[in-house]
Amino acid sequence: MTSSPHAQARPLRFNAFVMNTASHIQHGQWRRPDARQHEFNDVDLWIEVAQTLERGAFDALFLADVVGVYGPVGGNYTVNAREGLQLPNNDPSVLLGALATHTTHLGLAFTSSILQAHPFEFARRVSTLDHISRGRVAWNIVTSFQESAARNFGLDRLGDHDSRYDQAAEYLDVVYKLWEGSWDDDALLRDKAGAFSDVDGIHRINHEGEHYRVEGPHLSSPSPQRTPFLFQAGSSPKGRQFAGTHAEAQFVGGSTPEQVRTIISDTRDVAVAQGRGPDDILFYVALSFIIGSTEEEAKRLEREYDEYASEEGFLAHANLGVAQDDGTPYPPDTLLRDITTNGNRSTLASVTHSIEGREPTVRDLGELSAKRHIRVVGTPDQIADQLHDWRAAGVDGVNVVNWVLPGSYTDFVDHVTPVLQDRGLQQREYAPGSLREKLTGSALTNERHPSAKYRGAFR
Amino acid sequence: MTSSPHAQARPLRFNAFVMNTASHIQHGQWRRPDARQHEFNDVDLWIEVAQTLERGAFDALFLADVVGVYGPVGGNYTVNAREGLQLPNNDPSVLLGALATHTTHLGLAFTSSILQAHPFEFARRVSTLDHISRGRVAWNIVTSFQESAARNFGLDRLGDHDSRYDQAAEYLDVVYKLWEGSWDDDALLRDKAGAFSDVDGIHRINHEGEHYRVEGPHLSSPSPQRTPFLFQAGSSPKGRQFAGTHAEAQFVGGSTPEQVRTIISDTRDVAVAQGRGPDDILFYVALSFIIGSTEEEAKRLEREYDEYASEEGFLAHANLGVAQDDGTPYPPDTLLRDITTNGNRSTLASVTHSIEGREPTVRDLGELSAKRHIRVVGTPDQIADQLHDWRAAGVDGVNVVNWVLPGSYTDFVDHVTPVLQDRGLQQREYAPGSLREKLTGSALTNERHPSAKYRGAFR
Repeated sequence: MTSSPHAQARPLRFNAFVMNTASHIQHGQWRRPDARQHEFNDVDLWIEVAQTLERGAFDALFLADVVGVYGPVGGNYTVNAREGLQLPNNDPSVLLGALATHTTHLGLAFTSSILQAHPFEFARRVSTLDHISRGRVAWNIVTSFQESAARNFGLDRLGDHDSRYDQAAEYLDVVYKLWEGSWDDDALLRDKAGAFSDVDGIHRINHEGEHYRVEGPHLSSPSPQRTPFLFQAGSSPKGRQFAGTHAEAQFVGGSTPEQVRTIISDTRDVAVAQGRGPDDILFYVALSFIIGSTEEEAKRLEREYDEYASEEGFLAHANLGVAQDDGTPYPPDTLLRDITTNGNRSTLASVTHSIEGREPTVRDLGELSAKRHIRVVGTPDQIADQLHDWRAAGVDGVNVVNWVLPGSYTDFVDHVTPVLQDRGLQQREYAPGSLREKLTGSALTNERHPSAKYRGAFR
Repeated sequence: MTSSPHAQARPLRFNAFVMNTASHIQHGQWRRPDARQHEFNDVDLWIEVAQTLERGAFDALFLADVVGVYGPVGGNYTVNAREGLQLPNNDPSVLLGALATHTTHLGLAFTSSILQAHPFEFARRVSTLDHISRGRVAWNIVTSFQESAARNFGLDRLGDHDSRYDQAAEYLDVVYKLWEGSWDDDALLRDKAGAFSDVDGIHRINHEGEHYRVEGPHLSSPSPQRTPFLFQAGSSPKGRQFAGTHAEAQFVGGSTPEQVRTIISDTRDVAVAQGRGPDDILFYVALSFIIGSTEEEAKRLEREYDEYASEEGFLAHANLGVAQDDGTPYPPDTLLRDITTNGNRSTLASVTHSIEGREPTVRDLGELSAKRHIRVVGTPDQIADQLHDWRAAGVDGVNVVNWVLPGSYTDFVDHVTPVLQDRGLQQREYAPGSLREKLTGSALTNERHPSAKYRGAFR
């Protein structure tokens, strides 16, 4: 496996991939005695996680989000409730406001859907967070994929996939105009002998589009990053096109370094076709770590996690629409050929494909879903070896998925981070400046990014 | 002046009435050497203010907000920019997220308009803040009064005054349903040997109204207060009706205790007509304090404040639409009879009414606007005497308007608070519990409040 010069030039980036909820990804683990994610309503848990991450020189804490429940329209959310499957959950933006003041260097990333906030309000909220954190905010733009989310915001159904991306593109246009174009660099004067601001440097944006009409000016003065650092996770053709255009960092799927290498290469091609540079996007994979002082201990721990895994939780999360007419889940022994689904048939097919020699059941589907997340199992040295392979495949960063809070991060920072640092695979200390400066060396989005065209555009 | 038993029974309540901006009310004062409100982008200033307030046993920090600029449609915002008149400004909700973790007892109140956030998203953001602060959130519901705000959110113009209140009533209906009705008290189990939540206790609200359609369920589990403590400021007939129905605390205008006594009495009548109790609403007046160790020192300080006062800032804030055709303000010597206004003619008339014997000018209008805010000037003892009179008129609480941050609050807490505490006019320590428990003794909105009817309504 050859490695690109890019991948070797610097350590991997590390985010904690979490959510302000009890069961984000590794369903069932909140029942472990050492798990504290059931205390997610308590801000002290999050302060402890954030400070642990900063102690380990993690780049960012990333708060995922949804604004609905998984399942079909009108579905029964029995499993969601029982498993704490992203229900209940809380708003990530106000939590990040709190965490900003208990950390100094840690990036503060969150997901927000175009469904949930009007771009004028959202732009100001983000600018405020960027002021409070002194330039450490990142945003993961999503279009929502839950029917329930649409129905919480006045829609009958989600728009079709492509039209959601078209709306997202306009949403980005609005917020770029507000962040980059509404205030000139020298408009904020704060001159006690004169003016607070120079009106000639504060511009209305007068956006008029298909989905939004926004006059402006932006109400916040320019924050350290202006546009927050931008994450994106699209994997469909349209989603990859969108990420290639807008993302500064992208989450990539794929279960092996080789698969990921292909996705990265394809997305770089999209980026270049959009006039961006091949290295303008950082690529992150999501990994769950199982750390032992010996390989045997790690494998024993893995069996323990498997025992706690909630197959039902994984099934419901897969959002396959696998439910009986009343919305309740099928019994585990139900043969897959006997069920109907209004969900994602291709995901269903890919999951069931691996069962051979007998008829797959709903239980098989749940077990397979539970194991689809990539695990990195072993001693700190073995983990470092595997991370080296991911880096060699062109991966820039890792979203560290937790089993338990805060233990999964405490363990990583205490046991894996020192080994990674010795090998040059994780930074020892933070670079100065904003999150974007730390990650890319640049204070603002670069001149090839679509936000850049609005600098000075309204003068 | 006789005092009601209600007013005598307990000390006055105190809020700091501030805004995440440079010039909130006392325009021009940011230019004072001791003023630090020009640093409002810096969260450390706000942490210092909040901790000062908590040291003085203030009940709450109240962050006002606007989501536009003052002035006519398409107007020139030269004065707004020069004076820092609520421009730039930042989002209050994420700032309160930060302040929640640096205080223990202080209430955290903020204004949010029905224009700026969808009720489904807003309800979750508030619940999250109420979790983070352990039950200290208050919300001031407003309908927005700036044309610019409407045009930031896709509207050509604001709806008419009454229709905005109708929409606000539906907005409240939606959030009450989410806060009070969506989750039963015992639905959150967090049982590691069983279920995280009981699905039978989590309800869709299926709201279908003229302005909003919201399916639910609410995504946050019940926060300590469920519905945040509710402030309201309406003074029009429709606004007073609205406050009488929904407010748990109301801001009242009026420049003397006697005027305020009448307003309070009228609003109590409205409340009773709505089936609420006469004491279900706390009434707050906004006062600016000028504190001297002698009366002479206080008066000298008052002259100093007057010298810094920005008449232009007050004029622009009055939102009278007093501007030339190009949106720029009229020169100060312009006779009022020579100007046109698309703004609030009754306010204009009330301000100009006081000029006698000569033709009023724009400058007169500005000077009068600057002095319309009620000042309480004197030694701490003299201030206590005046506050006693306000309390005797039935006032429950005071919104303390600052001249400078953080000095106005530091001075108040250091010099006035001890005298007020000796006289029983300000609490010495906080009552236990949530903000509502501290202010009213009750954990939830009382059974007469319109939110109460949704408890158990979706079972």
